[in-house]
Amino acid sequence: MIQKPSIPKGTRDFTPDEMIKRNYIFESIKSVFKLYGYLPIETPAMENLSTLMGKYGEEGDKLLFKILNSGDFISNVTDQNILNDSIKLTNKISEKGLRYDLTVPFARFVVQHQSEITFPFKRYQIQPVWRADRPQKGRYREFYQCDVDVVGSNSLLNELELIQIVNDVFEKLNLDVTIKINNRKILSGIAEIIGENDKIIDITVAIDKLDKIGIEKVNEELASKNISASAIEMLQPIINLKGSNSEKIEKLKTVLAKSEIGLKGVEEIETVLNYVSKLEIKTKVELDLTLARGLNYYTGAIFEVKANNVEMGSICGGGRYDNLTGIFGLKDISGVGISFGADRIYDVLLQLEKFNTANLDNVKLMFTNFGENEAIYCLKMLEKVRKAGINAEIYPESSKMKKQFSYADSKAIEFVAIVGEEEMKENLIALKNMKTGEQIKVSVDELIGKMRD
Amino acid sequence: MIQKPSIPKGTRDFTPDEMIKRNYIFESIKSVFKLYGYLPIETPAMENLSTLMGKYGEEGDKLLFKILNSGDFISNVTDQNILNDSIKLTNKISEKGLRYDLTVPFARFVVQHQSEITFPFKRYQIQPVWRADRPQKGRYREFYQCDVDVVGSNSLLNELELIQIVNDVFEKLNLDVTIKINNRKILSGIAEIIGENDKIIDITVAIDKLDKIGIEKVNEELASKNISASAIEMLQPIINLKGSNSEKIEKLKTVLAKSEIGLKGVEEIETVLNYVSKLEIKTKVELDLTLARGLNYYTGAIFEVKANNVEMGSICGGGRYDNLTGIFGLKDISGVGISFGADRIYDVLLQLEKFNTANLDNVKLMFTNFGENEAIYCLKMLEKVRKAGINAEIYPESSKMKKQFSYADSKAIEFVAIVGEEEMKENLIALKNMKTGEQIKVSVDELIGKMRD
Repeated sequence: MIQKPSIPKGTRDFTPDEMIKRNYIFESIKSVFKLYGYLPIETPAMENLSTLMGKYGEEGDKLLFKILNSGDFISNVTDQNILNDSIKLTNKISEKGLRYDLTVPFARFVVQHQSEITFPFKRYQIQPVWRADRPQKGRYREFYQCDVDVVGSNSLLNELELIQIVNDVFEKLNLDVTIKINNRKILSGIAEIIGENDKIIDITVAIDKLDKIGIEKVNEELASKNISASAIEMLQPIINLKGSNSEKIEKLKTVLAKSEIGLKGVEEIETVLNYVSKLEIKTKVELDLTLARGLNYYTGAIFEVKANNVEMGSICGGGRYDNLTGIFGLKDISGVGISFGADRIYDVLLQLEKFNTANLDNVKLMFTNFGENEAIYCLKMLEKVRKAGINAEIYPESSKMKKQFSYADSKAIEFVAIVGEEEMKENLIALKNMKTGEQIKVSVDELIGKMRD
Repeated sequence: MIQKPSIPKGTRDFTPDEMIKRNYIFESIKSVFKLYGYLPIETPAMENLSTLMGKYGEEGDKLLFKILNSGDFISNVTDQNILNDSIKLTNKISEKGLRYDLTVPFARFVVQHQSEITFPFKRYQIQPVWRADRPQKGRYREFYQCDVDVVGSNSLLNELELIQIVNDVFEKLNLDVTIKINNRKILSGIAEIIGENDKIIDITVAIDKLDKIGIEKVNEELASKNISASAIEMLQPIINLKGSNSEKIEKLKTVLAKSEIGLKGVEEIETVLNYVSKLEIKTKVELDLTLARGLNYYTGAIFEVKANNVEMGSICGGGRYDNLTGIFGLKDISGVGISFGADRIYDVLLQLEKFNTANLDNVKLMFTNFGENEAIYCLKMLEKVRKAGINAEIYPESSKMKKQFSYADSKAIEFVAIVGEEEMKENLIALKNMKTGEQIKVSVDELIGKMRD
């Protein structure tokens, strides 16, 4: 029986054209991670469910892809109550799940390998993760995360370093971005000052809408969340916080004067921004109090990166967490990290037409094939060309020229080297530029020189 | 509750030290694939079970990792006969499985994307695969395959190209190997000549033992497999086939004179070896009739690569297949490819001590940290160092020197740059070679030059 081939919904094949663009992104990110002394690790696609369950909330547990136990998995399950209940049954017939993110496996890794690791431990990890989410535009069931973290150091130089990394990655990708930073301690300070410790998220969500809905509606929303009138009153200078980073910081120092934790947050941000000002960081770094991502686990700095001049959610985010490894038994290890969203970065670069042949690692040159003798002649030249590091191939069959050229065209190969009887006699190559159509005769050495231009 | 962290049996974490060595292997392989004009693709980790089942035999079906359907998967299963039967139940509660190899997904990919693909299609694919095999030394449940294939071309230039790729990869890895080649058509010819078409595998298995057990025992084994005395008689010149490749080829031409398919196989090998002789291929290429891997699907060339001077199975293998995509409805697409076994290559390189700092992409330089002012001073120098493409870091805390040096040591960082008050005044760096202990004072530019040596 012949099957019509397909793949599971929410997953993707990547064609060479897409892969070359994706690899350009991954390689750019990776090269910067390495420049800053981060080292790679990899963890298995499958983790024990005991490692994963309960780490992403109840909803997360449902979104884990679970692996069926091998062999006669059902033979030990005889209780009818279990056989009728998908959740109970899952516990009996599945003990492994697919990685849901890179953070929990990283925490597990650090604890499991703590005796082999020297702290501070600087690692990067670029691997796919899987989530049984409902697929929709831009949301997939398999996607890559690119995480970089340092654990075991409280120094704010680490926060600075992440900003440098973001700056360098997007400079490399020629993408104009803004880095937004916030600090959990400032948000805690605000909540403390206005006496609404539990309402941090409601407050930041409301403040975030200021530009769209105006101050009055923001205050209405705050009231609707049962925030007291006096608290809303105290929030006004914070909602209206404007100006440069240093103006914001001065205002916050006044507002948070009575909150120890709040002032600590302000001091941390001030230190980081002071480092930034001393270095060649071209990316705009902006203090943004509405930034509230990962409030459940971040304890200090919070980062988010947005591409300028394009409609797209954040393309990069992270922060400092003080007890990542606690759940696996290793206390008091502070870490800070960020994650690059490769899929979104891909979409942004595509939209802004930032991919071009110069930055993509494609095949540069194809030799035509006129038959046995010519092929062997070309193969010898190809040895030289490849020794020079140039990606090149020969068309494997002595097909019609039209077919060979259309192959080169479809592969977006920049140059075609035509070597027939005449060229062999002259010991030259007819080199055609596929973009301009220009054709010149060159020696092998000249050809290699041209390929390197 | 605190969990003792662990990972599923048969899976592995890779530490930075291992990852750097593994990446050296992957990057070496990848760079050669690219030099020859192969382009990357990726397929999802999960495939529909309908794509995977039945492709690897009954045993293979059992070794597939199957994904439990999401949601209330059991609610539709009410038939008690199904609820008690693991195999029947699997069909009802699982419709996806993890990739078992890269070949079937590639075939599926080619058929699914045939309208976007220009043939011949040259692709490489480096991704993990999963098998629920019993774990043992050197056998894992998750491991990487590095496959390179060209489909849609019958030209023997493709076979040559794979030999060139193997040659270049192992030259790059500085590993001495032998490429063994055979041709399915020769084996078919032999079976035809002696009238034992079904016994190909028995025959090659027996012949393979010649060196170990001698000719008499080989003949005994052949007889025990019900191969007739006259057939064994006719096999003698083949079993005793010795000498250079051309001597073997001449002998085969005589023995197979009456088998059309056999002679075709000899001609194919002769053509490929003729190409090889014209080029700078240093690796020994050896015609070996006992090579019988993948006899179920290979239809022409068969390849296997062994590392010389070390006990290890084949580290690379492949061949030509004429109907890979038939099962998915695309007929008459011939392909040829090979797969590099990264794990075995890793083990061989480790055993032969072929990894060294020169070929590994590690952190090159660490700046010590004497406090705020020194750190900022160093950060500025680090900007220059990194712009020069040198992987470098600063210790994030102003800890005791001993701690900072032991960190550099554990990370196998080659150089430590010490910048205290004195060095800042002199505008110099005290540069310590961690291997030799030698320490010299240099400017930033001199330091960058040194790092590049």
